[in-house]
Amino acid sequence: MPSPPDSFQDLGFARADTGRLARTGDAEVIYGEGKTAEQVVTLVSALRAAHPDHPVMVTRAAAPMRAAVVDAFAESTVDDDGQVVAIGALPQARGEVCVVSAGTSDAAVAAEAAFVARVFGAGVTRVRDVGVAGVHRLLAVRDVLDAADCLIVVAGMDGALPSAVGGLTGVPLVAVPTSVGYGASFGGVAALLAMLNSCAPGVVVCNIDNGFGAGVFAARVARRARPRTPEVSVHPRTPEVSVHPRTPEAAS
Amino acid sequence: MPSPPDSFQDLGFARADTGRLARTGDAEVIYGEGKTAEQVVTLVSALRAAHPDHPVMVTRAAAPMRAAVVDAFAESTVDDDGQVVAIGALPQARGEVCVVSAGTSDAAVAAEAAFVARVFGAGVTRVRDVGVAGVHRLLAVRDVLDAADCLIVVAGMDGALPSAVGGLTGVPLVAVPTSVGYGASFGGVAALLAMLNSCAPGVVVCNIDNGFGAGVFAARVARRARPRTPEVSVHPRTPEVSVHPRTPEAAS
Amino acid sequence: MPSPPDSFQDLGFARADTGRLARTGDAEVIYGEGKTAEQVVTLVSALRAAHPDHPVMVTRAAAPMRAAVVDAFAESTVDDDGQVVAIGALPQARGEVCVVSAGTSDAAVAAEAAFVARVFGAGVTRVRDVGVAGVHRLLAVRDVLDAADCLIVVAGMDGALPSAVGGLTGVPLVAVPTSVGYGASFGGVAALLAMLNSCAPGVVVCNIDNGFGAGVFAARVARRARPRTPEVSVHPRTPEVSVHPRTPEAAS
Amino acid sequence: MPSPPDSFQDLGFARADTGRLARTGDAEVIYGEGKTAEQVVTLVSALRAAHPDHPVMVTRAAAPMRAAVVDAFAESTVDDDGQVVAIGALPQARGEVCVVSAGTSDAAVAAEAAFVARVFGAGVTRVRDVGVAGVHRLLAVRDVLDAADCLIVVAGMDGALPSAVGGLTGVPLVAVPTSVGYGASFGGVAALLAMLNSCAPGVVVCNIDNGFGAGVFAARVARRARPRTPEVSVHPRTPEVSVHPRTPEAAS
Amino acid sequence: MPSPPDSFQDLGFARADTGRLARTGDAEVIYGEGKTAEQVVTLVSALRAAHPDHPVMVTRAAAPMRAAVVDAFAESTVDDDGQVVAIGALPQARGEVCVVSAGTSDAAVAAEAAFVARVFGAGVTRVRDVGVAGVHRLLAVRDVLDAADCLIVVAGMDGALPSAVGGLTGVPLVAVPTSVGYGASFGGVAALLAMLNSCAPGVVVCNIDNGFGAGVFAARVARRARPRTPEVSVHPRTPEVSVHPRTPEAAS
Amino acid sequence: MPSPPDSFQDLGFARADTGRLARTGDAEVIYGEGKTAEQVVTLVSALRAAHPDHPVMVTRAAAPMRAAVVDAFAESTVDDDGQVVAIGALPQARGEVCVVSAGTSDAAVAAEAAFVARVFGAGVTRVRDVGVAGVHRLLAVRDVLDAADCLIVVAGMDGALPSAVGGLTGVPLVAVPTSVGYGASFGGVAALLAMLNSCAPGVVVCNIDNGFGAGVFAARVARRARPRTPEVSVHPRTPEVSVHPRTPEAAS
Amino acid sequence: MPSPPDSFQDLGFARADTGRLARTGDAEVIYGEGKTAEQVVTLVSALRAAHPDHPVMVTRAAAPMRAAVVDAFAESTVDDDGQVVAIGALPQARGEVCVVSAGTSDAAVAAEAAFVARVFGAGVTRVRDVGVAGVHRLLAVRDVLDAADCLIVVAGMDGALPSAVGGLTGVPLVAVPTSVGYGASFGGVAALLAMLNSCAPGVVVCNIDNGFGAGVFAARVARRARPRTPEVSVHPRTPEVSVHPRTPEAAS
Amino acid sequence: MPSPPDSFQDLGFARADTGRLARTGDAEVIYGEGKTAEQVVTLVSALRAAHPDHPVMVTRAAAPMRAAVVDAFAESTVDDDGQVVAIGALPQARGEVCVVSAGTSDAAVAAEAAFVARVFGAGVTRVRDVGVAGVHRLLAVRDVLDAADCLIVVAGMDGALPSAVGGLTGVPLVAVPTSVGYGASFGGVAALLAMLNSCAPGVVVCNIDNGFGAGVFAARVARRARPRTPEVSVHPRTPEVSVHPRTPEAAS
Repeated sequence: MPSPPDSFQDLGFARADTGRLARTGDAEVIYGEGKTAEQVVTLVSALRAAHPDHPVMVTRAAAPMRAAVVDAFAESTVDDDGQVVAIGALPQARGEVCVVSAGTSDAAVAAEAAFVARVFGAGVTRVRDVGVAGVHRLLAVRDVLDAADCLIVVAGMDGALPSAVGGLTGVPLVAVPTSVGYGASFGGVAALLAMLNSCAPGVVVCNIDNGFGAGVFAARVARRARPRTPEVSVHPRTPEVSVHPRTPEAAS
Repeated sequence: MPSPPDSFQDLGFARADTGRLARTGDAEVIYGEGKTAEQVVTLVSALRAAHPDHPVMVTRAAAPMRAAVVDAFAESTVDDDGQVVAIGALPQARGEVCVVSAGTSDAAVAAEAAFVARVFGAGVTRVRDVGVAGVHRLLAVRDVLDAADCLIVVAGMDGALPSAVGGLTGVPLVAVPTSVGYGASFGGVAALLAMLNSCAPGVVVCNIDNGFGAGVFAARVARRARPRTPEVSVHPRTPEVSVHPRTPEAAS
Repeated sequence: MPSPPDSFQDLGFARADTGRLARTGDAEVIYGEGKTAEQVVTLVSALRAAHPDHPVMVTRAAAPMRAAVVDAFAESTVDDDGQVVAIGALPQARGEVCVVSAGTSDAAVAAEAAFVARVFGAGVTRVRDVGVAGVHRLLAVRDVLDAADCLIVVAGMDGALPSAVGGLTGVPLVAVPTSVGYGASFGGVAALLAMLNSCAPGVVVCNIDNGFGAGVFAARVARRARPRTPEVSVHPRTPEVSVHPRTPEAAS
Repeated sequence: MPSPPDSFQDLGFARADTGRLARTGDAEVIYGEGKTAEQVVTLVSALRAAHPDHPVMVTRAAAPMRAAVVDAFAESTVDDDGQVVAIGALPQARGEVCVVSAGTSDAAVAAEAAFVARVFGAGVTRVRDVGVAGVHRLLAVRDVLDAADCLIVVAGMDGALPSAVGGLTGVPLVAVPTSVGYGASFGGVAALLAMLNSCAPGVVVCNIDNGFGAGVFAARVARRARPRTPEVSVHPRTPEVSVHPRTPEAAS
Repeated sequence: MPSPPDSFQDLGFARADTGRLARTGDAEVIYGEGKTAEQVVTLVSALRAAHPDHPVMVTRAAAPMRAAVVDAFAESTVDDDGQVVAIGALPQARGEVCVVSAGTSDAAVAAEAAFVARVFGAGVTRVRDVGVAGVHRLLAVRDVLDAADCLIVVAGMDGALPSAVGGLTGVPLVAVPTSVGYGASFGGVAALLAMLNSCAPGVVVCNIDNGFGAGVFAARVARRARPRTPEVSVHPRTPEVSVHPRTPEAAS
Repeated sequence: MPSPPDSFQDLGFARADTGRLARTGDAEVIYGEGKTAEQVVTLVSALRAAHPDHPVMVTRAAAPMRAAVVDAFAESTVDDDGQVVAIGALPQARGEVCVVSAGTSDAAVAAEAAFVARVFGAGVTRVRDVGVAGVHRLLAVRDVLDAADCLIVVAGMDGALPSAVGGLTGVPLVAVPTSVGYGASFGGVAALLAMLNSCAPGVVVCNIDNGFGAGVFAARVARRARPRTPEVSVHPRTPEVSVHPRTPEAAS
Repeated sequence: MPSPPDSFQDLGFARADTGRLARTGDAEVIYGEGKTAEQVVTLVSALRAAHPDHPVMVTRAAAPMRAAVVDAFAESTVDDDGQVVAIGALPQARGEVCVVSAGTSDAAVAAEAAFVARVFGAGVTRVRDVGVAGVHRLLAVRDVLDAADCLIVVAGMDGALPSAVGGLTGVPLVAVPTSVGYGASFGGVAALLAMLNSCAPGVVVCNIDNGFGAGVFAARVARRARPRTPEVSVHPRTPEVSVHPRTPEAAS
Repeated sequence: MPSPPDSFQDLGFARADTGRLARTGDAEVIYGEGKTAEQVVTLVSALRAAHPDHPVMVTRAAAPMRAAVVDAFAESTVDDDGQVVAIGALPQARGEVCVVSAGTSDAAVAAEAAFVARVFGAGVTRVRDVGVAGVHRLLAVRDVLDAADCLIVVAGMDGALPSAVGGLTGVPLVAVPTSVGYGASFGGVAALLAMLNSCAPGVVVCNIDNGFGAGVFAARVARRARPRTPEVSVHPRTPEVSVHPRTPEAAS
């Protein structure tokens, strides 16, 4: 049984919000940037103790922090591209999130989104290397898009991919602009504006590089979706999923 | 039976996309701004003929255009605040969208979002007059928020409302900034940026004043959500819903 | 024989650059905005006298100005959508410019671009109603795109169309953002930035709503292109061309 | 007795404004950034000599500079989080400033504000770890807010906290945006704009990360406020205050 | 006795927050822009009934709205420059706010600030026609500035006035940028940025043209300030105060 | 014979688009930034195998990456200023691109543009050290400008050069703003805006520092241009061309 | 003898700064925008009385205001293009300002600059219709440029003209951007940025459309310049000067 | 005798514009940033040979480059703060430029401006440590300001100083914004905008941190000014001048 809704634990440098799981249905997530590896390990311990049956996740965790966490806990899942790590058994997947990305440069944001969606309780499929400038590759995966309960579309530069995907399917679509680009991309602003003005109806947008927010949102949509009929699952999900459990010894 | 996916009808001034319903599950929507009332009536007729069992919607329709449409067709539903009109029987509502707005100035955008969500097949509840500067009113409707399948939160000025709502519930939340404000609100940019940077996890954002996009997205989420158990519906929905059917004679 | 390169005619309110044709190969164009109809007629007369074998063009000409010009001169060609008028016989078309546009709202800019390209000496084909959100319509006209010597792609909102077109063909492509949109489109800035960051290689961009500049540039590219082999012309050009000669009496 | 209003001391690299205390009631403050530790020690000495009964403060002082100052003078107070140091006995506290901050990332700015307000003569209370996304924690400290003479509310990201606090109390409220965030936070601009457009009446704003300015302003408000009745002080202030006197030997 | 803190009255088009006075010490203010005169009169009546001993204020009220309010209620105070009107006896003035403005173009914002500060319970002095470009006029009123409990400094264009005033006195200073200017003033952005970067310590800033917010804030500071000694009041306040009671008949 | 249009090769870290040459007439280009030298060598090998008769190009290749590529393949052409390398025999040059640049700081972008245009099949002439502030140097090369099939004009700071060049000739002109400058150049934005607003008709623009895009576009224009008569070639092209073949041993 | 330096006259709606002439050498100028014609006439009278031997000027005066002033005073000089009027005999011209402008759209700003420079005591020459896109016309007036003591260069759109002029001469050059343009000209921002980044050394810049400021500055430079030798005056100045005295009866 | 106007010398990496002195009256200046010390020494040699009686200047020269130049040439003048060095005898000073700056942080830009003005032929006075926030210090140097032929006013942060100085004197005033500041100073944009909108008439502006441009412009104004009468020189200039000749041996 998790800690009660109004509980918290004062760790000196921070107060672990041990009651958030009971309040909102999702546990607190640790934002690694700006914290030491020791602080993160302490925070993970506190949250693990508060709700041992629910995983704890650390985002924006650089390599040494990921290593420290993997060393410290028995059951962790790591994604190096997304700089994320989860401690504890992942929940059973309900519903399906499909993360679509264009170039290799967008991989980090897409990986973070996929990992977060999985830890927040959704199944995840990934579609890589599809772009507006090669629209035939997009058409080829149309059935994969239609089979999802929520789409996350990650793109930098011109941010045109969500419009093209949104014209092919009626699945709810979350667009994530990335800071990939130079000059008049202004660190992702060009992609952000394009997505906010998408000519496809029903596209919603996250902050630049915010794979975390997209993953949380999409998981919430997917896990409350009505189960699809089994035959829809034409696309083999397993090898595309980016999350991969590791035993601590394997990671060290 | 609706027209086939690749069909369209050339009307001279435009090509009615009569096949969109078959392709994406949602019919084409007519954007009224910049069109004459006559053009809109012609477009509605073409789309009605293509899929008589599915409603046709016109958005950003000024008063004379709404009147012309109501006069021309037997079954129409109008929302004056949202400047929207739908022709044909509305689909049965599946799932529940809750539209939350703060001030009276945000009413037009909230009304458009609510109407669109209803026409796109979701039930709609509205919560008005809750703002961050009076947070007790927000706490009082917490059960209404929790009962929805998707939330639309509309706010101008500081755009702070989605963060407060997002901290109270785990329901998927779509934020819509409005152009309400002056000076450094920059026509809604302040609210847009605040929402993109929301400190509540899982907030996604639409373009400024884009009630239409939020309504489409939220309906898609809600109508594919698992049915909630009946006792959750503690909040009386009917009197809050902004859509109101009219017979053509009543409207004229 | 046109006036010599350094000639000009002082009209009091302006100096007609009668020598520009000899200097650069293209005659001076009259920008109608901010001028009276009388001033424009006087300017047209001066330029006509300087090079009677070469047409004179007026852009951004509102309806009364277009009417005044048509009344005053024997041989004029008018495009109401593009707010442009040319006086004198159009040059023989060399090469082919294809103007691609997405929505009806972009029609004015596309019409201006097409008309200008034609008056500057290129043949012109138009493709309307293709958008990224309905990519199948774009694929259907791929041969038309390939048959052009230069493409002009006009789009507002997310500005995604040039990227999609640029991925389908190697024809030189000029993108024109339009001010169509609202909220975070910022009067065309969103489309402009998207086009500058296009993920398709070799896309170049004009100012927002600058159909004139795109037309001039594309005509210069097309009219110096090597003639294509006859069988490429699979697309019937005539009915798509937007320029239409009028006799002065018919227009009045 | 302090130096006369128009006095100053030329130190070669700068002119110490020894007369400012007499002119404005507050002594000159040394901005450490861009100065050497030696220059700062020299400046402190000059100002100490001019008004030995009034403390001298150094802001934006990195660790080595703080150490050099602590070594050089007998009575110093240091705040490492806020990168500030004061030399000389602090004035008796009049009135109460309450510094409210949301996340751990805003701690540096909040610490600077609190320290400056204390050195400028006000008592200081701090409230940490309250955010709009967890509004119940804010409601729990409502009496602390009401007991202050001036509030400083520090927040990054969406900058929503001042609106929520401003709706709970009528105490004068100074908002300080921080540069915490990424993407469309634009280095604190999103928070700044949200605060300038706060839907709570009477919120005023400082520059991004300007804890110093907020501390000066709030101290001036608090120290001229009418004394509150003793029973209002329900919140134990001492352990929350961030300033901590050190003897030079303890610090080295 | 005012209505209890959680009370409100549903008027159909809005909910009058009749409990705000009890909650925060200040009654709700009616923002006139976008409302009809009839709606405003209805709102005033509801708020008057809830707290008959406390005035009700309407801001951004155009001339016909001000006339309608004056006609409808027995005791009103009007400021035409500031487009504000208050109904009911003004509270006794406690403390002193001084509103400083530079040019005649800034008069509307300064008038709004002064009126609001008076209705919120502070005494008000105004200093007009002082600017950085004529600094001797500023030096001449230095004693007036020092006599205030809070300063409001209103300026457009270069926004330099708050820095100059802030260097002359230690009184808390609220700066209000105005949209007066052209070209690179960007509707007040130049003045806003200058004020946020003021080289005088302790300057805080409101939104562009937000005289209302400055008035609320300054009144809160002034009315809780310790009473000054009588001899400080060297400046005759009465003829400078911009608020002027009218009987309804006189105004009509 | 190159690989078929829809072919690609999965390399694990990326999918080499081996079919692009057949689809669009131009082979895929490798963007070196963010890739390791090993990855680039692997990609080059895959593309070389797919179309051995067509060169492969790597852009934004830092010195170690260029060295690794030169070591690995027998026939490479390198431009150190432009940070580009091509592997395989360059195609025969058709048509002529002239790259005009002003200052030495713009050299890197101009070099990239020239190299790319050459690899994409055009002949290339370069004109250096001409600027608006020394317009006589520009007039001296007027015949060189007129002899080109497409111009690329590279400029930072005020971005004025394209306007001056565009007034001298009717040759199609692609402008490339560079990030050279400081202060209000905003990383090339000043030059970008100036070029988009060029007072010379028919100027089109690329992204800031996007020599690659300009080269691709200009080559496509030039290589399909009608051959000019031989006597036009008054300017000796060879010594100005920046591409210089190297044998692998010479480069190492 | 003019009024003493610290004098002013309170007119109720404004304070006429009758002492400015004695303080700074230049009389106060009346900014007409936002004032009534009656207010302006009253202000002119007050200033005329204070310094009858020195002219009074009104800028941004619309046609009715100009007519009212001409009717009210015996000796006035008017420029309709620049919307300026001066009352009283103009001072003897010392030194020479040359105002250079490109297009007819920039005429209003150039006219204001020229008129103001003349009233502030400098002789004025105007050069019209020279632009960067026709650089030969600029070279033709090089001797006129060299003969001036200060240049004012007015340009909109790409703002390139000051760079070209600044490369031809060492005369001090003041650049004035105008709001002429559309799309990415952003109301003159493109021209402003180009001028601030001019590649010609020694270009200084005024606010957008600020012909007044340029005229004041240039007159101050010119009238204190050493007299040039007579033979330099190769250009006939009289017919180019835009100021033209009118008797009141002639203007009415 | 200097080289003829159209001469230049090709040095391989650059073309030294040896003819500029004859063309414009001022020799070419070497911008050190991005060049090696060796290149700069070579350029200096070429320009020295072309006009041995005229100094050569290097700006933005870091310490090693300054040392290399001082070592290489017999007669050099260096300013370390301004990162500038001149080689050759300075011209006799004609006229007087006064450089006014506020804080120590603006010293680098002020030093560059002063040095450049001196090398371009004007005498230079400096006034330091005057700011709007301490306006009495400004009033104390009013006679120094009036004695100059041209003022350069350097300020960061709020950019208010030029307005205050411009209100005190009628001397031509060039404002230079600096990038000093943080947060909403946006690297000098706040100061730039304030200066462009100065409420003092006749203020002109340079790019952010562009002390060079201000120095060139001011020297051109000052050296052509009529000689002032000797008694005006009340301020001792010599000890304030920042330029200081060094013999090569002394510097090494």
